[in-house]
Amino acid sequence: MGFDHRKYVAFQPVQKTDRRWPDQVIQHAPTWCAVDLRDGNQALVKPMTVAQKQRLFDLLVKLGFKEIEIGFPAASQPDFDFCRKLIEENRVPDDVRIQVLTQARPELIARTYEALEGAKNAIVHVYNSTSTVQREKVFRMDREGIKEIAVNGARIVKSHAEKQPGTNWTFQYSPESFTGTELDFAAEVIDAVNEVWRPDQGQPVIINLPATVEMATPNVFADQIEWICDNVKYREHFQISVHTHNDRGCAVAAAELAVMAGADRVEGTLMGNGERTGNMDLVTMAMNLYSQGIDPTLDLSGMAEITDVVEACTEIPTHPRHPYAGELVFTAFSGSHQDAIRKCLSTYKEGDKWEIAYLPIDPRDLGRRYEEVVRINSQSGKGGVAYVLERDYNIAMPRWLQIEFSKVVQQAAETEGGEVDSDTIHRLFEEKYLAVRPEWRLRTYDLHRTDDGVTATVEFGSERLSGEGLGAVEAVAAAVEKRFDVRLAVEAYEEFALGEGTNANAMACIRIQVNGEPHSAAALAEDTTSATLQALLSAVANHVAVTETSASGTATA
Amino acid sequence: MGFDHRKYVAFQPVQKTDRRWPDQVIQHAPTWCAVDLRDGNQALVKPMTVAQKQRLFDLLVKLGFKEIEIGFPAASQPDFDFCRKLIEENRVPDDVRIQVLTQARPELIARTYEALEGAKNAIVHVYNSTSTVQREKVFRMDREGIKEIAVNGARIVKSHAEKQPGTNWTFQYSPESFTGTELDFAAEVIDAVNEVWRPDQGQPVIINLPATVEMATPNVFADQIEWICDNVKYREHFQISVHTHNDRGCAVAAAELAVMAGADRVEGTLMGNGERTGNMDLVTMAMNLYSQGIDPTLDLSGMAEITDVVEACTEIPTHPRHPYAGELVFTAFSGSHQDAIRKCLSTYKEGDKWEIAYLPIDPRDLGRRYEEVVRINSQSGKGGVAYVLERDYNIAMPRWLQIEFSKVVQQAAETEGGEVDSDTIHRLFEEKYLAVRPEWRLRTYDLHRTDDGVTATVEFGSERLSGEGLGAVEAVAAAVEKRFDVRLAVEAYEEFALGEGTNANAMACIRIQVNGEPHSAAALAEDTTSATLQALLSAVANHVAVTETSASGTATA
Repeated sequence: MGFDHRKYVAFQPVQKTDRRWPDQVIQHAPTWCAVDLRDGNQALVKPMTVAQKQRLFDLLVKLGFKEIEIGFPAASQPDFDFCRKLIEENRVPDDVRIQVLTQARPELIARTYEALEGAKNAIVHVYNSTSTVQREKVFRMDREGIKEIAVNGARIVKSHAEKQPGTNWTFQYSPESFTGTELDFAAEVIDAVNEVWRPDQGQPVIINLPATVEMATPNVFADQIEWICDNVKYREHFQISVHTHNDRGCAVAAAELAVMAGADRVEGTLMGNGERTGNMDLVTMAMNLYSQGIDPTLDLSGMAEITDVVEACTEIPTHPRHPYAGELVFTAFSGSHQDAIRKCLSTYKEGDKWEIAYLPIDPRDLGRRYEEVVRINSQSGKGGVAYVLERDYNIAMPRWLQIEFSKVVQQAAETEGGEVDSDTIHRLFEEKYLAVRPEWRLRTYDLHRTDDGVTATVEFGSERLSGEGLGAVEAVAAAVEKRFDVRLAVEAYEEFALGEGTNANAMACIRIQVNGEPHSAAALAEDTTSATLQALLSAVANHVAVTETSASGTATA
Repeated sequence: MGFDHRKYVAFQPVQKTDRRWPDQVIQHAPTWCAVDLRDGNQALVKPMTVAQKQRLFDLLVKLGFKEIEIGFPAASQPDFDFCRKLIEENRVPDDVRIQVLTQARPELIARTYEALEGAKNAIVHVYNSTSTVQREKVFRMDREGIKEIAVNGARIVKSHAEKQPGTNWTFQYSPESFTGTELDFAAEVIDAVNEVWRPDQGQPVIINLPATVEMATPNVFADQIEWICDNVKYREHFQISVHTHNDRGCAVAAAELAVMAGADRVEGTLMGNGERTGNMDLVTMAMNLYSQGIDPTLDLSGMAEITDVVEACTEIPTHPRHPYAGELVFTAFSGSHQDAIRKCLSTYKEGDKWEIAYLPIDPRDLGRRYEEVVRINSQSGKGGVAYVLERDYNIAMPRWLQIEFSKVVQQAAETEGGEVDSDTIHRLFEEKYLAVRPEWRLRTYDLHRTDDGVTATVEFGSERLSGEGLGAVEAVAAAVEKRFDVRLAVEAYEEFALGEGTNANAMACIRIQVNGEPHSAAALAEDTTSATLQALLSAVANHVAVTETSASGTATA
């Protein structure tokens, strides 16, 4: 009773001494078959309507699928009707093969061929269960009986096809629950089916090996596939297909390792919809190939459309962490990740090979924007904040200001508890550094350079002040020191021209000590000198404001 | 530009000639470390509040985790405060080690030890990035420089620990972005760190190898782990940990194969929350072990509580197909699946090994109910419908009635477009078979057996009819034939006693031909004879009603 692992028996893997697949690397995409309209559909609380099926079928065609399983017409009237609709309304492109599933029973196969009448290219996919559990507990038959069902099914499939010669027929057989079937028996059944179909004599044949239930680590599935590839007759004359399920969360891994082990073809669904934990996700596997420089033979650039259609047809939302497709999968909140991404992107040029830390692929390839990559919350650091201000407002802070300002943002994020958007970051920057009190607004300046240095006169508010120094900043600082009776020491300043699309042409950031206390400010202006001097004035204004507040605070205490 | 795979470079795997991991089978659970409160938290749009962190920490403790990474205190004030809170409020059980992350920088390490002051057991997890991309594009340092950061970090970690001898310290080092690091360099850095820490002299050490970004098929990660295990010094004196991410959808597979390849410890999060595509899902990997008869060393029986807490803390809903935890993962809609499950469950007894088609584990182990396993929609068949009626209403239909009634349900499902719940199925059954028109309600019967057969007298409505036959059914049939001028032929009938909890004690189902047309009915009664005779009357009533309707239809036409 209760939570007790002893109720379960470990899967017994085959002993292999000639394993070769771990040395393989996938070099090209397998043949894809999308089973969204069959396996995917039969796993939905609310099966798709005809309109939904049509929409999903059209999407699959658009993405580039050439083999699409459209239903189980002998078991379902809506599936039958949809099959007829596709054929009669000529909705299947000439280079696409529709596939339909049927059990290996005479009346169901007959009905299946009725559904396919007039199709140009079709795959008749016949199956029966072969696993020990199914033989013993469900069908109560021995191996011979189960094999006979398969062989008989194969014969009937063949004889119907001969009666409908107008269609290019491909035959597909699945020993359903393959992962739970003894390998020698699976090979025996496959051979027996192929003795009927004779792929070596020109009949196109697919043998599909389903992990109907995922029962072991994915390397075991690869061993099973390699074993079958090594031990069936006519191997070079037919395709081996795999159809993995995700019970152990490893459907993609199992399909990938199976392709390394010799499988030619992979069945799956968009976003992995399907029975229970779902099917192998075609989007993930295809994008995995893409990210290795391999042509996936599918165009997945419109990822938003893919998730929209799949969500509308399955009524299952996309998980925010779904590989390649989820909302958050290209986003970094952590400061060090943001910093690394920023540095890598800063040197990336169109045409370069993609080597960006924390981003396995370029989000733009899937219609995503760099704006989504760096998002700011309390876990973020200076790099991310700097990146956002530069990306969205063309404000390039010096490093010392990044450190200072990121603390301001982090505090806001901690207070707020959530994400801090780009607007808010900009507003915080304006309030903290750019705001100018009216009486401290720089109006005019005169700078006069002699051999001894610079004489500066600045007009701000209603005042005119003069001072001297080695440079403009020092001269103005001297003027201010005199006027306000303070000591100023410039710790850092940086001025730079701004890009297009802004009112101001220049920006300056400054940090000065005013009577030993650090104050920072920034300013936008039409020229760099104005910006720098305004920043200087604002920093001092900040100190004076603080002093005044604190003085008045004391007075009323 | 656009969708072009040529922008990407294939990952170059290590060439291995001494690969051993594919022959391994995992025999016991690794040491688990839950990083929900650090990696998980830093990937959330809205990082957790203190209350949420506490709730998640308490859950992790309750599930049985003995190592829990609680934050990055040197980088985040809330993380620092939470760490202090756990220690000062004595919220860490004596057998649990809290772990905190820090970069290998002196001031951050110092702050980290401040956060840990007074802890009983703690793991200081220090890291720096070692991959080629990070070295060249982010840190702009050579191998020596990067190694020096690690070694220096290790030294500082050690010296702080010596100053706080009241805590049992474990040191952990991660060469971050390990999957993108040349293996020989990774081993060189690990060895250099261990030369400082000297695990061979008794210092507990963990070397954690992160797939910071998942970069290749999971077998390649296993090769990397096996290579490192074979090529580092002091291997037997420290733990090798893995920390996989899910960029290619294979984080669980990679961790499993890595354990086969020699890793002792696995970091991950509940439900796989974490940066981008997320971390390795601890729930899935632990349940994968459980399903193979291996003690996962965690108690995951309260799966609903786990998903509730994780959802409340991360604000990310559980995907309905999430292995072991999603709403739909124990549900079969397809007819053949339902049929197989029903047959397997019918012979399953408490204490048996679990071998049920389409159900890798017993849903009850995780607090789920069999009620969720078979759900009915238009994809379902007779097996599922029969299962639901028997399970919820104790109505065991004979096979011929299952076939007939499943069509009624399927039609309703197709019309409705969605799921048909148990109530509706029962209502359809009542309407179609159990309903009795008042004038056809059986009131009394007399049966008199002689050597020649049975004489029956039945009273129904205001009528009394008599007839003779070989048995009771035939005798009543004869009476009805006479009265209504019809020919009756009983095709099938079945009667059976009902279990407890129902008003009636018996049920009967009958199919008869009335003037060559088949009609079925069922009846509940206090004894089987009453039930059978009522079913017979109802079937005939059904025919008479049809005839009358059609006659009146004709009359008004």
